[in-house]
Amino acid sequence: MKLKMPIILVNYKTYYEATGKKAVKLSKIAEEVSIESGVTIGVAPQFVDIKSVCDVVSIPVFSQHIDPILPGSSTGHVLLESVKEAGAIGTLINHAEKQLRLCDIENIVARTREAGMVSVVCTCNAAVSEAAAALKPDIISLEPPELIGTGIPVSKSKPDAVTEMIALVKHVNPSAVTLCGAGITKGEDVAAALKLGTMGVLVASGIVKAKDPRKVLMDFADALSETA
Amino acid sequence: MKLKMPIILVNYKTYYEATGKKAVKLSKIAEEVSIESGVTIGVAPQFVDIKSVCDVVSIPVFSQHIDPILPGSSTGHVLLESVKEAGAIGTLINHAEKQLRLCDIENIVARTREAGMVSVVCTCNAAVSEAAAALKPDIISLEPPELIGTGIPVSKSKPDAVTEMIALVKHVNPSAVTLCGAGITKGEDVAAALKLGTMGVLVASGIVKAKDPRKVLMDFADALSETA
Amino acid sequence: MKLKMPIILVNYKTYYEATGKKAVKLSKIAEEVSIESGVTIGVAPQFVDIKSVCDVVSIPVFSQHIDPILPGSSTGHVLLESVKEAGAIGTLINHAEKQLRLCDIENIVARTREAGMVSVVCTCNAAVSEAAAALKPDIISLEPPELIGTGIPVSKSKPDAVTEMIALVKHVNPSAVTLCGAGITKGEDVAAALKLGTMGVLVASGIVKAKDPRKVLMDFADALSETA
Amino acid sequence: MKLKMPIILVNYKTYYEATGKKAVKLSKIAEEVSIESGVTIGVAPQFVDIKSVCDVVSIPVFSQHIDPILPGSSTGHVLLESVKEAGAIGTLINHAEKQLRLCDIENIVARTREAGMVSVVCTCNAAVSEAAAALKPDIISLEPPELIGTGIPVSKSKPDAVTEMIALVKHVNPSAVTLCGAGITKGEDVAAALKLGTMGVLVASGIVKAKDPRKVLMDFADALSETA
Repeated sequence: MKLKMPIILVNYKTYYEATGKKAVKLSKIAEEVSIESGVTIGVAPQFVDIKSVCDVVSIPVFSQHIDPILPGSSTGHVLLESVKEAGAIGTLINHAEKQLRLCDIENIVARTREAGMVSVVCTCNAAVSEAAAALKPDIISLEPPELIGTGIPVSKSKPDAVTEMIALVKHVNPSAVTLCGAGITKGEDVAAALKLGTMGVLVASGIVKAKDPRKVLMDFADALSETA
Repeated sequence: MKLKMPIILVNYKTYYEATGKKAVKLSKIAEEVSIESGVTIGVAPQFVDIKSVCDVVSIPVFSQHIDPILPGSSTGHVLLESVKEAGAIGTLINHAEKQLRLCDIENIVARTREAGMVSVVCTCNAAVSEAAAALKPDIISLEPPELIGTGIPVSKSKPDAVTEMIALVKHVNPSAVTLCGAGITKGEDVAAALKLGTMGVLVASGIVKAKDPRKVLMDFADALSETA
Repeated sequence: MKLKMPIILVNYKTYYEATGKKAVKLSKIAEEVSIESGVTIGVAPQFVDIKSVCDVVSIPVFSQHIDPILPGSSTGHVLLESVKEAGAIGTLINHAEKQLRLCDIENIVARTREAGMVSVVCTCNAAVSEAAAALKPDIISLEPPELIGTGIPVSKSKPDAVTEMIALVKHVNPSAVTLCGAGITKGEDVAAALKLGTMGVLVASGIVKAKDPRKVLMDFADALSETA
Repeated sequence: MKLKMPIILVNYKTYYEATGKKAVKLSKIAEEVSIESGVTIGVAPQFVDIKSVCDVVSIPVFSQHIDPILPGSSTGHVLLESVKEAGAIGTLINHAEKQLRLCDIENIVARTREAGMVSVVCTCNAAVSEAAAALKPDIISLEPPELIGTGIPVSKSKPDAVTEMIALVKHVNPSAVTLCGAGITKGEDVAAALKLGTMGVLVASGIVKAKDPRKVLMDFADALSETA
């Protein structure tokens, strides 16, 4: 994996504020903040917007999901080869809003590995994180579903869950990178995540729905630089 | 619905031969044949490729699927607004390879109607076609799953299924347009589909996997012109 | 279909109050009320409890779901033949909490028809009810999901949705029986349902969670007798 | 877990030969062979048949699946409490024919642990087995899907997959019991499974579809006794 850690990874979900031209605009802001701060910022736009975003920025772009399929007869599915050709360097897998069957997660992680893409498996608790780690993805991101979108930061409200996750993941897969997410809206939430031992955060509404995404991203980046 | 009928609608599925730059190239061929023949040809590329295709051709572009969601927290899902902004004028719904729950089909058809997009509901038999017609989509396309990808044309091997489908659909929704698909590989299959009363065909491998897609498309278009 | 209408159909869901021995006990109460009142009362216990219930009561017993499968290799699925042999005379299909793909609903309705079992397709709105009617089930039951479990009766709060549902269903399938459900807790809710033109109600928590299920059932049965 | 190892665990799937009264009859045969041979034989009938089977035999009975739900509003789902009250002492989880989302597997394993039931998580390959082991189920059973129902025994055709599975599982969870299945039809297949280090087999058609299930079960039990 060639990504420089730590990282702020911004999931655009299907927010109106990060669809189409707005996705491109937000990605340019992310790139500017990344250049200015020297911090790695990745973005995960919707499938339809991946190419438009990749065409204008050089920061790492992720898909939000890919399907466990090979090229062929899979109407309406998301093919790894299509997101890779569009310029994505990795993908989220098993996000709380797009949960997958265990065997499919294994299949997708293996497919990304063969394709040289970065796999980010999202998990709902520490035990599931350990299970995910056994599949040898590049990154595991803990996102307790009950905190997603709440503004209550996992890194401050559930620090024990994060440190337990890191310990269990390291036991199974010492080289795995860990992130955490859910409720992250301030630089101090990001700093707390790093202090717990993660290599960054997965964030969505905290940036996408912010009044001034640039300002919040810069706040995140500064916290990351100072803490790392 | 502003689509001129009859139509040849080409589903790119997740075929390697119709992914990324190859999707753009095939779409240009489809446009050339459409202009030359005067026949409406629509294409349904993968999500990731919709914008690239729409940016270079003026023929109708469809999504292969959209999800029954509103803008918001739906990581990994396909938002109507994203495919519409990319330039798609309609979408396949409930393809045999991406089957949907009944209430979700109704939701998506209603969403496309509000958004002024063309809805093409795919169905597996005549009874299901009648059920789909009750949801008032613009187009209903019968594709018996056992014939998909076989080269055995529905229009010649199951003519009674097609005429029964048309009769049941018209009973519930007299203004619905009907198509048929599965196993369509020759102009005569297309001609047979029109003679049965449909307004065209939904085709995938017959074009995408053809040695010379332009030639087969022109063959289809000629058959459509002569029969219509 | 040999069921005498109108009917009160009690869905036990997975309520603790209607699991195992409690399911048997509640079914005996339902039978007693049915005998005393002369009103048809059906019950839909969990899969595991179907046989225990059928072994001790003579009222109609329904499954809550069956899967679109034939006998064979379908570990963890619910086979029509198993629920039929256990004594169920019909099944709910596509309940809001167990929604199904359109083609699967058609398949299950056809399977129940061949097996001489009563099919009750649940629907979320009037348009979906019309679609379901095209599949020719015996009974269609409208249950607006937003009212399920609320105590706000569909028959009083959404009378227009019920009458529209009946009109659309009759257009497609004049012989279909219609029910409605969601929020039904009192005899007057049942009476209102009948006055709108349905042949009864589908009810769950209104009976299962009642302090005195016998009393509420008798209240329902009286309302049904007086109104029918 | 109070099960005496090794074990022959017979999955009835939805085979006609193991539905209803036939399930009860086969379970009695299994019990007789278990008593005669002294070998633990467990059976996993369909949901509907669990109680009938538990009512007449004393061997361990498993559910084929349970859903990740609590008592409440889950029409058409399988509640742990219902299968437990019926007499099941454990459940299969994530069988190849009923695959589950990762978080749901974790939830179900945790639920069975709290309820004192035996959890048997089925897996498709060694990596997935390690992931499953991290969730701390009692038993992990490897069943390569490509061998299921083929008569090509996993224990003889893929011995390396079995030993790799055992090693990975032990690394994460030293106390986990491992089984293997798929294509097991003879005593020698069972012996091979034990020699590789498993504690028994998960078998379906090899017993259920056998002309003389008693004879094959006795053959299995003898092989198990001699090898253990």
